Amino acid sequence: MASVEGGGLSVGLELASATDATVLGAVSTEAGYSFGVLQLLRPGVQEAILAGDQSVGQSFFPSDLQVTNATYAGFVLGGISACDALDSGVEILQQKCEALVKRQVQWATHLGLSAVLFSYPTTGAGVNFARAVNHTLSMLSYTQAWVRICIESEDGDSWKKWNLLRTLCEHNTKLSVALELPAELPEESLLLQWLAEPVKAVILPTSAFIANNRGFPVLSKRHQSFVRKLMEQNVQFVVSAKSADENIHPSGGLPAYQQYIQHLYRTRPEPDVVDKFASGYHDYLQQPLQPLMDNLESATYEVFEKDPIKYQEYERAIYRALLDRVPDGSDRVTVIMVVGAGRGPLVQRALQAAVASNRKVKVYAIEKNPNAVVTLRCRKESEWEDLVDVIHCDMRYWEAPEQADILVSELLGSFGDNELSPECLDGAQRFLKENGISIPSSYTAFVSPLSSTKLYHEVSSYGDNAHLETPYVVKFRAVHELGAPLPVWTFEHPHRGLKLEPGSPNFNEHNNRYSKQRFQISQDAMMHGIAGYFEAILYKDVMISIHPKTHSPGMFSWFPIFFPLKVPLYLSTGSSIELHFWRMCDARKVWYEWAAVPVLPASDSTPETALVGGASTIHNIGGRSYWIGL
Amino acid sequence: MASVEGGGLSVGLELASATDATVLGAVSTEAGYSFGVLQLLRPGVQEAILAGDQSVGQSFFPSDLQVTNATYAGFVLGGISACDALDSGVEILQQKCEALVKRQVQWATHLGLSAVLFSYPTTGAGVNFARAVNHTLSMLSYTQAWVRICIESEDGDSWKKWNLLRTLCEHNTKLSVALELPAELPEESLLLQWLAEPVKAVILPTSAFIANNRGFPVLSKRHQSFVRKLMEQNVQFVVSAKSADENIHPSGGLPAYQQYIQHLYRTRPEPDVVDKFASGYHDYLQQPLQPLMDNLESATYEVFEKDPIKYQEYERAIYRALLDRVPDGSDRVTVIMVVGAGRGPLVQRALQAAVASNRKVKVYAIEKNPNAVVTLRCRKESEWEDLVDVIHCDMRYWEAPEQADILVSELLGSFGDNELSPECLDGAQRFLKENGISIPSSYTAFVSPLSSTKLYHEVSSYGDNAHLETPYVVKFRAVHELGAPLPVWTFEHPHRGLKLEPGSPNFNEHNNRYSKQRFQISQDAMMHGIAGYFEAILYKDVMISIHPKTHSPGMFSWFPIFFPLKVPLYLSTGSSIELHFWRMCDARKVWYEWAAVPVLPASDSTPETALVGGASTIHNIGGRSYWIGL
Repeated sequence: MASVEGGGLSVGLELASATDATVLGAVSTEAGYSFGVLQLLRPGVQEAILAGDQSVGQSFFPSDLQVTNATYAGFVLGGISACDALDSGVEILQQKCEALVKRQVQWATHLGLSAVLFSYPTTGAGVNFARAVNHTLSMLSYTQAWVRICIESEDGDSWKKWNLLRTLCEHNTKLSVALELPAELPEESLLLQWLAEPVKAVILPTSAFIANNRGFPVLSKRHQSFVRKLMEQNVQFVVSAKSADENIHPSGGLPAYQQYIQHLYRTRPEPDVVDKFASGYHDYLQQPLQPLMDNLESATYEVFEKDPIKYQEYERAIYRALLDRVPDGSDRVTVIMVVGAGRGPLVQRALQAAVASNRKVKVYAIEKNPNAVVTLRCRKESEWEDLVDVIHCDMRYWEAPEQADILVSELLGSFGDNELSPECLDGAQRFLKENGISIPSSYTAFVSPLSSTKLYHEVSSYGDNAHLETPYVVKFRAVHELGAPLPVWTFEHPHRGLKLEPGSPNFNEHNNRYSKQRFQISQDAMMHGIAGYFEAILYKDVMISIHPKTHSPGMFSWFPIFFPLKVPLYLSTGSSIELHFWRMCDARKVWYEWAAVPVLPASDSTPETALVGGASTIHNIGGRSYWIGL
Repeated sequence: MASVEGGGLSVGLELASATDATVLGAVSTEAGYSFGVLQLLRPGVQEAILAGDQSVGQSFFPSDLQVTNATYAGFVLGGISACDALDSGVEILQQKCEALVKRQVQWATHLGLSAVLFSYPTTGAGVNFARAVNHTLSMLSYTQAWVRICIESEDGDSWKKWNLLRTLCEHNTKLSVALELPAELPEESLLLQWLAEPVKAVILPTSAFIANNRGFPVLSKRHQSFVRKLMEQNVQFVVSAKSADENIHPSGGLPAYQQYIQHLYRTRPEPDVVDKFASGYHDYLQQPLQPLMDNLESATYEVFEKDPIKYQEYERAIYRALLDRVPDGSDRVTVIMVVGAGRGPLVQRALQAAVASNRKVKVYAIEKNPNAVVTLRCRKESEWEDLVDVIHCDMRYWEAPEQADILVSELLGSFGDNELSPECLDGAQRFLKENGISIPSSYTAFVSPLSSTKLYHEVSSYGDNAHLETPYVVKFRAVHELGAPLPVWTFEHPHRGLKLEPGSPNFNEHNNRYSKQRFQISQDAMMHGIAGYFEAILYKDVMISIHPKTHSPGMFSWFPIFFPLKVPLYLSTGSSIELHFWRMCDARKVWYEWAAVPVLPASDSTPETALVGGASTIHNIGGRSYWIGL
């Protein structure tokens, strides 16, 4: 689609009265639209052919065949006619319609149109429609296939239709939604579910607009809110009007609709600091770090050191711990060991907290990455001098010269324990005093079932089993959370009662976990995976969080984690889904396994967990596809 | 498992009182059993370890560690203890039990036991049990994993438990069922569903036997019937007794149970002629023939010519058609053309029908396979002489010297039209008189939803997508049909009103079909695919059929056809499943596509087909994985 001058949004026009690209082109351009939707079949041709009239032959397309391809390709979005009878149950009619549909798609690809627009049949479940569409998908290369779905104001059937279609079509990535919004929007949850779907275009009939007090077309608050959410996902817009001079709104005429949409786009709210940081990373899958096996690069340290919130909270936690531990005016020296010191941001914060609290400290900076140690030694010489000892060692095996009062670490991953903070700190606590303090003192992982066609497409595009059972760090956007996150497990530090020595067999087994959480599903949905978050208590009430409800404002160091399902699960309204998570280890690695199991709620006649079908497999069994090296 | 002398059935003994292989061995051998089930954990050890007693250490196995591996491996089936607490919800207990379970499985594989026997936990849904079992599966090579499932007399929960387990374990082929039968059997359908599952052993507690009038243990009629069905699937048997001298039945003692089971085995009914013919082919997947693209081999002709029923019915049909067509005493010569004559069995039958009906005939034998034509020419010279003309030609392109009265063909496949009988006969009917007769005159394809873990294992073992969307010819045994077959479509010959010439574009498109059938599911089940059959009317009431309800007795030329589903579908009691089938063609090939879509029945508040989730994909789209060449 040609984009509007000056960048920004692409708004097109559909004009029921225009059956000719030249006419539509003139009207659209004059009214400021950047593309047009044109039915590829001339009016009456479909009826004639279906009635058996052979005379219309192959010349059933709009009369402007002579328009150059370039004009077409850049300007026209091709509406596919004859879909409606595909599920009529009348075999001969279905066959003729299918041939017509194929012919139109061939024509569209011949012209190089950027997209064709299918309409869901109004009769039947649409299974034969799905097969016809599925066939044409293999004919498309450059051209995209959009399916026009009108949100209905009553029930969730429009989503169910789309879901049936894309399920039958194997979640084909060439298939997207052109979402038509009615004047009356349904309840909020029936809108939000579309954010998890591949919506490429929003169709706004002129009747969906209301008049403002100057008579110009505008959208209701709810329409605005939803449209702005979709704008974040780079959708295109289509205004659908009956004719160029229809008079639904007193002022502005045809140009006013696109002007208003452009206005909404220009005046959309600024992204917050986290979103700004995440720019370009939305819905982009990242492999989680392997901090024990790999050495972080300088640039990685640099990015994370810029977090405006994380280090401030750490400093606050250390400050509070120092105040609690040493009375005012005491000369006692508090030994602080920063384990996994990286390039030193927490060392710096510890020293600042000492100054602010007026406490004396001795700081050890322990770091295994030899490259980071170079920076630490530099900073010791130039900034910290005798206040800091730099130790190049893996904290799990360091023989400390003295015991620490406070152990400070930043070993958390998006799922809390997934960068092996428990194993590292269990190893380090040998040199923490009996009554010593760990910052963080605990962290909890959270999960919730997630719908996201986009993320499923991304993961399955690798085409192998291993990627479908690997978790990814990802900034969510095109997702719909199917329940509020629930806590999975918590790790506390120091781990009181830990008896084994690091390195002994089964040392890490006490950090194995198994947990299940149940979510009641309030709306039919396709579950594509599981969202993971963490909350950490640094010290007493000082905490950091990426849990959506308690997210530390402005903190950008962690995106959520996404655990895929190999086969999407259909969840019905009123059913419950149990998410099972295991954290496992052996001598060399730690890994997660996960499964989703539908359950019925307990009732008088059924036991606590009635067995229903449709469970997922257990993912990543034995850590075969994903693990974190110890 | 060591098999009994003289071949036959392997019957083992489980003795609750025996905790020692030597004791169990002596008792079993004396009583005529060929193997024994022994718990791998000594009594009390589990309790001691779980209570935290470290003193039992690693020496928790039965005292007869010194028994040689060969003795163990050939004789003992290892019962795995400590499964029961795996879903207790008590984390530390679960972890200890899991470690114990793994230790036992390692021990069993070390000894080279042929199988270990897990017991489903009595508390919890068993998800953690499933993960523990799943882990051990990767540790097994020679040793099999059997899960003991006791059929409950009330509801279908025992199957649901098994289904959850194998779903979570990804349909792992190492996992099988040891099915324990209670004294009271549940309703028939709850038994029959097990025929579709990988049952490797049947456990019969002595309490499941009744006493006959001489006081010996026997099984009830229903037990006998079910046990005999399982015997066809080569299961092993285990008699489970409390002690060697328990006195449940007055006569016979321990030997009587195995003697009775051996008796049932020896006196099982003879297989019928079709089963005898199919011996070795049960549940074996065969690629359907490509009769137009490939030339059949002599041996293939030879096998099919031996069918005792098919040619008899063809002769009856020709005889009846001759009687109808020519009045008694007339000298009129009826022209019979056998299209696809092969090595001539239908030519021979046509001549016999002429003799029997006392009608004059001229027979043409048209055959495209040059190798079969050699035989035909031989037979003409030695047997048929002037009565028969042999034509080496593809029937679709033959220019006949005269028109036929009767066109006889045997082009049917297991699904009726799947060997392209419609396309061939449409091509051949050019040389059939306006009022001519086609034998067969019509054929109808049938489908029904099918459960079969075995077939799913077979198809998915290829490890690719293409095999999962290819139909197979297969003699069903380990299957459970989830509904009576329903007709899909019918082809009639001659095809009146056919206008196009063979070879013209779209000539075959009139043989495209789309059909959907709805099945109500009376019992929770896993659907693995679709069974296909055909019925054909040769002439008037002379028909042949492989539809289970109307199967021509003794006819063995066709096994059913099986269309797999890529992902098994869980179907709930009371739900309905719609099977969608398409028959499609292009210039070079014909293919099927299929999909399964769960539906809700129409009600006052919902439209005819409410949209529910969990549809399959459309299989074999565009014929990408399977097609029949034209």
